[in-house]
Amino acid sequence: MILLDGKMVSEELNLKLKNKVDSFDVKPQLDIILIGNNPASLSYVKGKKKAASLVGITTNLHHLDENISQEEVERLINSLNQDEKVDGILLQLPIPKHLDQEYLMDLIAYEKDPDGFHVVNQGKLFQKRKTIYPATPKGIMTLLDYYNIPIEGKSVVVVGRSNIVGMPISKMLLDRNATVTICHSKTKNIKEITKTADILVVAIGIPKFITKDMVKQDVVLVDVGINRVDEKLVGDADFDEIKDIASYITPVPKGVGPMTIHSLLFNTVLLYESKNTK
Amino acid sequence: MILLDGKMVSEELNLKLKNKVDSFDVKPQLDIILIGNNPASLSYVKGKKKAASLVGITTNLHHLDENISQEEVERLINSLNQDEKVDGILLQLPIPKHLDQEYLMDLIAYEKDPDGFHVVNQGKLFQKRKTIYPATPKGIMTLLDYYNIPIEGKSVVVVGRSNIVGMPISKMLLDRNATVTICHSKTKNIKEITKTADILVVAIGIPKFITKDMVKQDVVLVDVGINRVDEKLVGDADFDEIKDIASYITPVPKGVGPMTIHSLLFNTVLLYESKNTK
Repeated sequence: MILLDGKMVSEELNLKLKNKVDSFDVKPQLDIILIGNNPASLSYVKGKKKAASLVGITTNLHHLDENISQEEVERLINSLNQDEKVDGILLQLPIPKHLDQEYLMDLIAYEKDPDGFHVVNQGKLFQKRKTIYPATPKGIMTLLDYYNIPIEGKSVVVVGRSNIVGMPISKMLLDRNATVTICHSKTKNIKEITKTADILVVAIGIPKFITKDMVKQDVVLVDVGINRVDEKLVGDADFDEIKDIASYITPVPKGVGPMTIHSLLFNTVLLYESKNTK
Repeated sequence: MILLDGKMVSEELNLKLKNKVDSFDVKPQLDIILIGNNPASLSYVKGKKKAASLVGITTNLHHLDENISQEEVERLINSLNQDEKVDGILLQLPIPKHLDQEYLMDLIAYEKDPDGFHVVNQGKLFQKRKTIYPATPKGIMTLLDYYNIPIEGKSVVVVGRSNIVGMPISKMLLDRNATVTICHSKTKNIKEITKTADILVVAIGIPKFITKDMVKQDVVLVDVGINRVDEKLVGDADFDEIKDIASYITPVPKGVGPMTIHSLLFNTVLLYESKNTK
C-alpha cells in the first residue's frame, strides 16, 4: 500500500506556488468573508489564512456579526467585486439561515471565485470548458496525478453527489475518460457496486461507511470524509481495515484536506494571472 | 414489451399545451436562427415550426446566409434579447465553422433559452436548482414518467456523455435517486456494464451499437440515436433484436425525437409564463 500523502504533496506544491508568487511585484489577494463564529469555520479559515500567508498570498478577513443583514453582505460583495486589488472572494460556508446563500454565491463575480462554486463556473465544468475547478475535486485530481495513477478506461465509483465534491469529481474523472458510477444514500446493493471500483472516491459524510468487504483488492481509495468522532477526525472509510487491501489510500486527516487548501491557493493565483493577462 | 410511444405521447401533451396557449391573449413567440442550408437542420427547423404552429406558438425564422459575419449574428441575438415579444431564441446547430458557437450560445439571454443549453442553465442543473432542462433529456424524463416507470433506486446506465444528452440525463436521473453509470467510447467491457442496467439510455451515435447480448431481461431501453443508414433512420440500439427482451423500448423514429420537440415547446411556454409573472 502506498499512502496518498496529501500533506507532503500539498507542502511541495505550495512551495512551488510560493516561488511563482515571489516573482510577482504585486501579490495576489484573497478576501475571506466569515459570518458568525461556527467553530469549524473559524478553524478552516485559520488554516486557509495560514497556508495563504506561507505562499505569499495576501488575505483580508471580513469577520461579520452573525446577525448581519442580507443587504450589508451584498454591499460587501459588490465592493469586493469592484475592487481591482481583490483576486478571490471566498464566502465561508455555512452562513446563517436568515441569509440567501444562493443569491450571495451568484453575486460573487465568477472571475473572482477561487472555490469554483459559482453557477457559471460549474456550468462551464458541465460543458467541458476551461473553468475554475472546485477546490476539493481539483485537489483529488492533483493528488492522483502526482502519484501517476492511471485514470483513462478505469472503473471509478463515486459515493456522494454534492455539487461541491461528488458531482464535480465525477465529471472531472469522466473528462479524463474514466467510466464513472455515482452512488448515494438511495443506492441499492451499494457494496456490489463499490467492489467493482478501480478508483473509489467517498464523500458521503458517514464515519467508516466503507469497510473492507466493500472494496476489491488493489483499489485506489480516496476518502473525502472528515467526521468528528470522540474528538478525533475519522474518514468515510475504515482506513485500518482497508489499508492492506488498497494499492493507494488517502489518510484522514492529512489526505484530501490539505490538497483542498492547496487548490484554493492555486485557483487564487490562476485568477490573479488571468486578471493580469487581460 | 411495451412501446415507449413518443409520437403518441407528444401529440397528447402538445394538445394539452395547446389548450393552455389558447387561453393566452398574447401568444408565446419562438425565434429560430438558422444559418446556411444543412439539409438535416432544414428538416429539423421545419418540424419545430410545424409543431409550434399546432400548439399556437408563433415562430419567426431568421434564415441567414452561411457566410454571415460573427458581428451580424451577434447583432441579431442582441436585438432578440432586447425584444420583449421574444420568449425563446433557438440557434439551430451546427453553425458554420467561422462563427464562435460558444460565444453566441453564451450571448443568448439564459431567460430566453428553450434548449436549456446556456451555461447558466446547465450550471443550475449541475447545482440541482430550478432551471430550463435541455429538451432531449427533459423529453426522456417526461416519457418515462408518462409510463410510470420507477426511477428511484434503479440502476441506470447512460452510454454517451455529451452536454446535450448524456450528461444532463445522467444528472436528472441522479436527482430522481437512480444510481447512474456513465459510459462512453473509452469504456472497457461496456457489455458487462450495460447488462447491469434496469434503465439503459443510449446516445452514442453509432447505428445498432447496443445488441441483445448487451442488455438484461426486462430492461427499459431509451434510444436517443438518429442515424441515417441507406436512407433509413436507425437508432443506437438494434430494436428488432432487443424488442422481445425489453420491458419497455423506444422506437426510432417516433420515440425520443417527438418528445424532444414537445420539450422545446414546453420550455418556450415556461419561459413565456415566467416572463409574465415577473
